[in-house]
Amino acid sequence: MKPRHLLITEARYAFLAESLSDILDTRYVPYKELRLEDLAWADSWVGTRPPISPAASNIRWFHAGTVGVDLFHPLFQDLAASGSRLTHTVGTMPHRIGEFVVATVLAHVRELGRYKTKERDAEWSPGEDETLMDMRAVIVGTGRIGSATARLLRPFVGRVDGLSRSGRAREDFDVVRSLDDPGDLLEKADIVVVVLPKTPETVDVIDSDVFGQMSEAIFVNVGRGVTVDHDALRAALDAGQVSHAILDVFEVEPLPAGDWRWEHPAVDVFPHTSGRLRSSDVEDDFRAAYAAIVAGQDVPGQIDLTGWY
Amino acid sequence: MKPRHLLITEARYAFLAESLSDILDTRYVPYKELRLEDLAWADSWVGTRPPISPAASNIRWFHAGTVGVDLFHPLFQDLAASGSRLTHTVGTMPHRIGEFVVATVLAHVRELGRYKTKERDAEWSPGEDETLMDMRAVIVGTGRIGSATARLLRPFVGRVDGLSRSGRAREDFDVVRSLDDPGDLLEKADIVVVVLPKTPETVDVIDSDVFGQMSEAIFVNVGRGVTVDHDALRAALDAGQVSHAILDVFEVEPLPAGDWRWEHPAVDVFPHTSGRLRSSDVEDDFRAAYAAIVAGQDVPGQIDLTGWY
Repeated sequence: MKPRHLLITEARYAFLAESLSDILDTRYVPYKELRLEDLAWADSWVGTRPPISPAASNIRWFHAGTVGVDLFHPLFQDLAASGSRLTHTVGTMPHRIGEFVVATVLAHVRELGRYKTKERDAEWSPGEDETLMDMRAVIVGTGRIGSATARLLRPFVGRVDGLSRSGRAREDFDVVRSLDDPGDLLEKADIVVVVLPKTPETVDVIDSDVFGQMSEAIFVNVGRGVTVDHDALRAALDAGQVSHAILDVFEVEPLPAGDWRWEHPAVDVFPHTSGRLRSSDVEDDFRAAYAAIVAGQDVPGQIDLTGWY
Repeated sequence: MKPRHLLITEARYAFLAESLSDILDTRYVPYKELRLEDLAWADSWVGTRPPISPAASNIRWFHAGTVGVDLFHPLFQDLAASGSRLTHTVGTMPHRIGEFVVATVLAHVRELGRYKTKERDAEWSPGEDETLMDMRAVIVGTGRIGSATARLLRPFVGRVDGLSRSGRAREDFDVVRSLDDPGDLLEKADIVVVVLPKTPETVDVIDSDVFGQMSEAIFVNVGRGVTVDHDALRAALDAGQVSHAILDVFEVEPLPAGDWRWEHPAVDVFPHTSGRLRSSDVEDDFRAAYAAIVAGQDVPGQIDLTGWY
């Protein structure tokens, strides 16, 4: 079915009403002003949170303006039952998350923060001159974000291994094992980067068992906050299993004032900034999916509604 | 001529007296305790500053434990006249300088300093989410350090061009032009990285003419401080030709307290920390040169005494 009527319900994507008008009829209606007539008119939709139960509309293609589709999880059954398609935007985000990981790990290892402090006092104080060379990195999550991160990190480190649900080999990793059976990968890792999405299976999956295998590792989470048991992280910092933590995602965002992670000297807190999408990403990925749908080909970014991503 | 007697005159390389004893006789004598007998005994030497006029000793191979050989420049004629050889240590330094460049440029563009400040106040404040993607980098100096920097920077940016004395094409650069005739490379550059060595020709070569071609460029100097006219840099910062400067090297080091660069909000000062050598680098490069000398092959790291590096 060729999509003809696109409904856009979010102000940040309102620009698509004009920029996509070359391929279909478009309508931007703010979420709170939606009428039944809009839902009857549209066959396709762009937004970040599902506007309505799919069966109660004629919309059969939902395109999420985000990478994570956890807000859609409660609707997966309904979407499948109504024969609807869910696609998501990936765009340049995997690259930009990888860029953030390399930036923050390099900044930590090369002590840029220490130099900044010394500079404030006009103090010339060369440090130990640490380097990422010969370090071993493990990336938990070997999908598109994990792979992009592996590619960007690889030239700086000695090796990059992966941990995933399946343990299936992936070209951007030296070795991939399953997170349930990681061998000595975590034990030997100098850097552990978590890029897991939120699914029922990933909640608290980085727990004291996982941290217990690490030794003075630099720990980075750029996936979803709920995948990490943060009490276990705190214990791992106390025990020296983790030497430093770089956290961009949290179980509650914004991270509340007073949370221990703001204060901890070995924790860097970032405001979920690793890989926000550019608005052009949403348009690019929508167009790619549209072209594939019209051509009857495999649709890039289509979510497996029987799985979680 | 096969080197047989190695004289080491610096405490930081004293360990070589033992570790190189498998290939030649070694002697560590602190510089101030040198006797004429040592200079008569030795045919080869490791240190960072030349101990003596080459003709007044039997030493015919000088191996510098540094990348830059500017301290040897006054001796180049004497070295050539006495048939002596000068080699230098490169080791992992090009890679580590490249690592520093990527670290500091990423930290600046991804605003890690701003996030650190916000974190101190437990303030959740996502920024503009800048990225290096699509930026253009120009590296001034296309030798081993420039090439290593280009290779590490390349995956993060849109393109990496080079400027050199000759303008000769190099494989790690999209385009290389001569610094005297840079076309629009500097004009279009978002990032300009200077990795020039100190030679009579490079003093103040980055002057107001060069800065005048830039527009809001991020400027990085990891070569030698004297290659940049720092008054011109200051003017370029005032004029917006340079938006931010990352300086690791200075015409006088340590940079004196009170110097304007410590205070300037758009200047990051580092204490010549981009690429110090590891002690193993000196041994590795000495061994490689030794093997080539004994085999009568081209000697890696040998300095052209009719040029400057």
